[in-house]
Amino acid sequence: MNEEEFKQKIKDAVTKVRQTCPLVPSITNTVTINFVANAQLAVGGSAAMVYMPDEGESMADFGNAMYINMGTILPVYEESLPRTARALWSQGKPWVLDPVGIGAGELRTNILSEFRLMPPTVVRGNASEIIALAKLWHLDAGVESHVRGVDATDSVQDALTAAKNIAELIEGAVAVSGAKDLVTDGQTVIQSEGGSELFTKVTGSGCSLGGVTAVYAAVADPLTAALTAVQIYNAAGSLAAKTAKGPGSFERDFIDALYNISAEDVANNPFTMVEN
Amino acid sequence: MNEEEFKQKIKDAVTKVRQTCPLVPSITNTVTINFVANAQLAVGGSAAMVYMPDEGESMADFGNAMYINMGTILPVYEESLPRTARALWSQGKPWVLDPVGIGAGELRTNILSEFRLMPPTVVRGNASEIIALAKLWHLDAGVESHVRGVDATDSVQDALTAAKNIAELIEGAVAVSGAKDLVTDGQTVIQSEGGSELFTKVTGSGCSLGGVTAVYAAVADPLTAALTAVQIYNAAGSLAAKTAKGPGSFERDFIDALYNISAEDVANNPFTMVEN
Amino acid sequence: MNEEEFKQKIKDAVTKVRQTCPLVPSITNTVTINFVANAQLAVGGSAAMVYMPDEGESMADFGNAMYINMGTILPVYEESLPRTARALWSQGKPWVLDPVGIGAGELRTNILSEFRLMPPTVVRGNASEIIALAKLWHLDAGVESHVRGVDATDSVQDALTAAKNIAELIEGAVAVSGAKDLVTDGQTVIQSEGGSELFTKVTGSGCSLGGVTAVYAAVADPLTAALTAVQIYNAAGSLAAKTAKGPGSFERDFIDALYNISAEDVANNPFTMVEN
Repeated sequence: MNEEEFKQKIKDAVTKVRQTCPLVPSITNTVTINFVANAQLAVGGSAAMVYMPDEGESMADFGNAMYINMGTILPVYEESLPRTARALWSQGKPWVLDPVGIGAGELRTNILSEFRLMPPTVVRGNASEIIALAKLWHLDAGVESHVRGVDATDSVQDALTAAKNIAELIEGAVAVSGAKDLVTDGQTVIQSEGGSELFTKVTGSGCSLGGVTAVYAAVADPLTAALTAVQIYNAAGSLAAKTAKGPGSFERDFIDALYNISAEDVANNPFTMVEN
Repeated sequence: MNEEEFKQKIKDAVTKVRQTCPLVPSITNTVTINFVANAQLAVGGSAAMVYMPDEGESMADFGNAMYINMGTILPVYEESLPRTARALWSQGKPWVLDPVGIGAGELRTNILSEFRLMPPTVVRGNASEIIALAKLWHLDAGVESHVRGVDATDSVQDALTAAKNIAELIEGAVAVSGAKDLVTDGQTVIQSEGGSELFTKVTGSGCSLGGVTAVYAAVADPLTAALTAVQIYNAAGSLAAKTAKGPGSFERDFIDALYNISAEDVANNPFTMVEN
Repeated sequence: MNEEEFKQKIKDAVTKVRQTCPLVPSITNTVTINFVANAQLAVGGSAAMVYMPDEGESMADFGNAMYINMGTILPVYEESLPRTARALWSQGKPWVLDPVGIGAGELRTNILSEFRLMPPTVVRGNASEIIALAKLWHLDAGVESHVRGVDATDSVQDALTAAKNIAELIEGAVAVSGAKDLVTDGQTVIQSEGGSELFTKVTGSGCSLGGVTAVYAAVADPLTAALTAVQIYNAAGSLAAKTAKGPGSFERDFIDALYNISAEDVANNPFTMVEN
């Protein structure tokens, strides 16, 4: 596919979500759960958050797609996450995994390992998380990872090999977040530009991007979903950066921009076909 | 009572909360817990959130009223919610139930069933939730319910029979949220207008309305509490809609409006006596 | 030390955090967890929130300092908090304790009692919480405490004896929040002015101050950390109060001000050496 074809797919995804309001439940961390829900609503989806195992399965049944984020895990996740992922996988339902905090704690490591057998449709993370996930799944990552808390210390470019190998394994797409975001399905590699440094000063910029990716995954193929989410974040982030006076007003202006931006402007946010 | 008498009761409730700052603890979901607390503070109350069973009982003792919201339930709720509700009920203390997510999961269903025997003073929900709760409590609901995640797919008008029958059972009041909100004590039915479509684009609009209803329930009878909360939400929502540029700024402007609005303006928000 | 020396220390702490971006993980309540993280990011730190026992220990290892807040405790805290505190203590790593909700519930009381043996570097609370903690730790508090939910009903001045005795016991510092904030290391007592009444109308003003104190504790001694945090809160709060139209816009403007304020302006916020 060429750039014009991708632009059309992006426009279609933005529009279809606004027309159909897909239900996209989440199991996600308590730090940014409100931002995830509000971002999903702002782009036109419907949100519903759960923790209990049978509710995760229910949501896998009723939802049009789902979002699982590994931040602030609780004891009940030991049962909830594998049962939910299995329900999603057995129905072939799209879902997005955000491997936040990978490397910290035994439970998180065990669950993330298990996901290899009932894989997500899209993985979204920063460079260090994507590299660490590739290693955990015994894939060639090209380099070592350097996770520090929830921050990346590797560059997006360093995560390219890991991202492509994960995308091939899951037969889906991977989005690597950073100054210039990268999405790939293992073959095609696209770089999206724009956004704002202020994203790094608002907690949940990445998590909510994952939640919005799941909203688009309800109406589009994995690569298009990942690309559309990254594009709307970069386009709306560039707009918000023009009016914001700091991280507080940036978050508010960004939500407003997600809600108001046209499908056309999302598609026209600058992106580059790096490999095709 | 006639409209003028209700207006006076609304003014009294708004004023009394601002003068006395009632303590209104909650057990509520993690998605919107911050919005609930900030809305309760903005109208003049004091908030305190807990999860543990003995803390729920403590809060039932020390609080002037309480708010229980069924979103994002956790394993500990199996013990916390019945013990808290029993403590509230045995002391005749006012409390508001928000049956979010009704129909999803065994634990939520069991707890909601149990509440029939130690009922809340006010129930607040969208039309589908109110219809589903009436059915769960073996009451005539008039129609079938159609819960979808956390969204209603039934109209407020369709929930009127369910709302009246719940209100009679609990000898309290029911508020049905929607484009035009409806409150009833089983006899009187009042419709409140105003508000904004943007409420549906901000997560927690309904939850925080429930939390604010509990604040007014600390100083007023159930029907007045439900009506006052709905009126301040519609009046402040109408104001916020004039200045907001999207859901991000709407939430901020709405909290500001809750804080600044006069008791007079809350009472004068348009409402209609549908049945009396 | 004299005022000028403290001003220099404040400037150094503000600047060093912005230059080094210390990692300061938290175990904190779900009501204000997002505000804590965003405030920590706004002043230049990095945030990471956890609940699980082994993750608490991991964070104690990897973090440059840590923040523990006792609000909304969960069953897993029974194991997580003592293990985390022990890991922090055995490594001599700075950490800040926020004894929110002290007096409510058996688990919270037990954990807070245990902390006496592996004490924090800084305690931050309102007057009633500080008095209650002194009593729980069998210290002379001078007066009785009157905790009401999460609000103080004692004056900052009333908590001075309790604060000094806690500071001596932990060989660290105590910050008492109120209309005029007070920090002490047991000898020196400093009062910081400014801020805004609107802090009392935004949930998490105190919690996020605790989280920011932990960020400064990563780069400065306990008294300087406590003082710098209180000073940046009062200075940024005064700025935000000038532009805010209510609690909603105050929170946003305050986060913007935390991010934009100069080290010079933080140091020059009015403070008084009460005892030296």
